Amino acid sequence: MTRLFMFEKPLGMRDTLPVLFERKQKIRSSIEKEMKNWGYQFMETPTLEYYDTVGAASATLDQQIFKLLDQQGQTLVMRPDMTAPIARVAASKLLKNDLPIRLAYSANVFRAQQREAGRPAEFEQIGVECIGDSTVSADGEGIALMIHSLLAAGLEDFRLSIGHIGFVQTFFRQILGTEERVKALTRYLYGKNYVGYREHVNELALSSIDKQRLLEFLTLKGRSQIIEKAFDLLENDIGKRAVTELQQLWDIIFDFGLDGKVTFDLTLVSHMSYYTGIVFEVYAGNVGFPIGNGGRYDLLLQKFGKQTGATGFAIRMDRLLEALEVDEEELERTSCVLFSSERRREAFDYAQKQRKLGNKVVLQDISGVKDIDACTSRYVDITFLVGKAGKEAALK
Amino acid sequence: MTRLFMFEKPLGMRDTLPVLFERKQKIRSSIEKEMKNWGYQFMETPTLEYYDTVGAASATLDQQIFKLLDQQGQTLVMRPDMTAPIARVAASKLLKNDLPIRLAYSANVFRAQQREAGRPAEFEQIGVECIGDSTVSADGEGIALMIHSLLAAGLEDFRLSIGHIGFVQTFFRQILGTEERVKALTRYLYGKNYVGYREHVNELALSSIDKQRLLEFLTLKGRSQIIEKAFDLLENDIGKRAVTELQQLWDIIFDFGLDGKVTFDLTLVSHMSYYTGIVFEVYAGNVGFPIGNGGRYDLLLQKFGKQTGATGFAIRMDRLLEALEVDEEELERTSCVLFSSERRREAFDYAQKQRKLGNKVVLQDISGVKDIDACTSRYVDITFLVGKAGKEAALK
Repeated sequence: MTRLFMFEKPLGMRDTLPVLFERKQKIRSSIEKEMKNWGYQFMETPTLEYYDTVGAASATLDQQIFKLLDQQGQTLVMRPDMTAPIARVAASKLLKNDLPIRLAYSANVFRAQQREAGRPAEFEQIGVECIGDSTVSADGEGIALMIHSLLAAGLEDFRLSIGHIGFVQTFFRQILGTEERVKALTRYLYGKNYVGYREHVNELALSSIDKQRLLEFLTLKGRSQIIEKAFDLLENDIGKRAVTELQQLWDIIFDFGLDGKVTFDLTLVSHMSYYTGIVFEVYAGNVGFPIGNGGRYDLLLQKFGKQTGATGFAIRMDRLLEALEVDEEELERTSCVLFSSERRREAFDYAQKQRKLGNKVVLQDISGVKDIDACTSRYVDITFLVGKAGKEAALK
Repeated sequence: MTRLFMFEKPLGMRDTLPVLFERKQKIRSSIEKEMKNWGYQFMETPTLEYYDTVGAASATLDQQIFKLLDQQGQTLVMRPDMTAPIARVAASKLLKNDLPIRLAYSANVFRAQQREAGRPAEFEQIGVECIGDSTVSADGEGIALMIHSLLAAGLEDFRLSIGHIGFVQTFFRQILGTEERVKALTRYLYGKNYVGYREHVNELALSSIDKQRLLEFLTLKGRSQIIEKAFDLLENDIGKRAVTELQQLWDIIFDFGLDGKVTFDLTLVSHMSYYTGIVFEVYAGNVGFPIGNGGRYDLLLQKFGKQTGATGFAIRMDRLLEALEVDEEELERTSCVLFSSERRREAFDYAQKQRKLGNKVVLQDISGVKDIDACTSRYVDITFLVGKAGKEAALK
């Protein structure tokens, strides 16, 4: 291989070097602890799944899915998300006695990139799924746990927006009639392209009242006062169930004492086509993409043979790391013992004692080091145990 | 999809359900702590690498490698081991001032299975690489850290065997002359097929003295006394460097106080073709395969443009878990608070207080539960906060 090529990684693939790894591990561990305290149980699923099962149930665009053929000629996918695999396991093994189950994961997922746009093709998600509970309490718990997880990670400056896919669909259907027209208008919401939305509405063959209602819809952003406005936009009882759920959700979030952290944004929709009800996403600091999102997916379990509701969320570790302030380059405090063979045993004993106290100690044969000065500048302190008679000498 | 098929996973792919996950995480975390205390720094590399770089440097059989094409038509591989990716990163970014670096990882690797033989196609390895240190001290540290890692995981009944690829190759070359004949005889050692080895030796066109030497070689198993025997089998000074290294290694292991845990087995060779010097493997309890192995690979870094020595080892988490005794089904102690909306706020406050004390508490809206009896049998205790006036009632 050429010298230039030999260090290369596939498009969107990244190394995580030790300093960043250490940060990531600390943050992951704080979030894991929070999720476990809320009674969520962590589990793992394989990196590869069948295209026909989990691949088809996942809501990722086909061209973003890494595919390969196994030796039996079946198409496999590298999991593009964790919700579908967890649904597979829940439906096949864990759902019992109609009881809700609470599961969690931290796992890498894979989305192929078309060209280098700085987007990772492999990234870590940490998330939860509450499966088998159709109450709004479960939605509220998801939102509360998302907020508590981010707080546990040390994030302060973030905002969580809540929408309702069911409301959008019903409202659009009432006015637009056909699924095709609903889809066409919804597409502007995916990209938060409100200018395009307005232009599209104005070009539609609709009464001016209906056009006005579709434009009013864009203003359904804010705190609990938008709930009444949402009610008023609907022309009959259909769709009111969705708004009632939002009202209940607000009360629940209020009881959690978290109403200061959330706002409604009824224009919020999601690329993940399996969502059916309340959805939410979190933006933080200056990060241009949501650092996490979630929602209710009451139809996904059906694909695995179970009729039951579910809700969950995932946090993107890379974006959360970007959003978190870094205090300093957190260099691990590691000491070094440089020894020669005459005093090896003494060096081993010394290092083991330090390690038992929880200190990080590198044991280094001095004959393995060409540049002692470079070596001493790498560690917080150096202990020399060299030569037959020599006394122990500590540097720094 | 058919009902039967919808729960299936690709050949050799496994789910890790919560109880096993919890055990695995505890063991991983004990080993990680030990490795960090020895000054090893954890890092991550991507799941996908180029076939022409890391794929070619890895020593895994080609038919065992999962391959796919990216959108640019390049062949990618799902990493079959971590040694080659870590060597790539070390050579391109981390090796500085000729200083040894100590890196660690816990990562899943992938080896395609031909047919279902109960073997996993994806499994976790936790391991270290000490790169840039050619002293025997580095080999000794690898072996000592392997032993300490297994002890930290709670494993007691295990045995570590040490061989030397350089010795085997030199010894065989002296007698057999051609690389082809060396390879043919070495093949019996891979499979520990000593009967086949003996038959093969007897059929070779060699003097009876040489045949006797090749058969004697099989007896080079035991403690330090085999070192002299190994010296005697060689016909000249070539190869004696390898035996001298084994002598030094024994002294080092003795100084670590670990000589009771290891034996020599000079017939030990490895499928990983990148090994060049001291190699070792660990067997435990009744597990039929090594739970870990390692060794020196002084030529691998060359493939990434650096001339430097390196040694490392990896522990297979699945086999370690198999080897470890399980005390009992370690069910997580989780409590449950069942609430109705009237007393939601009280329930939230109660749960948060318990969680702050480090207790795992599920908050469950009672209207999300169909079978209360099944629910109460799942948790260590249940607190009812239900109905407007009701007093708190604790069950169990």
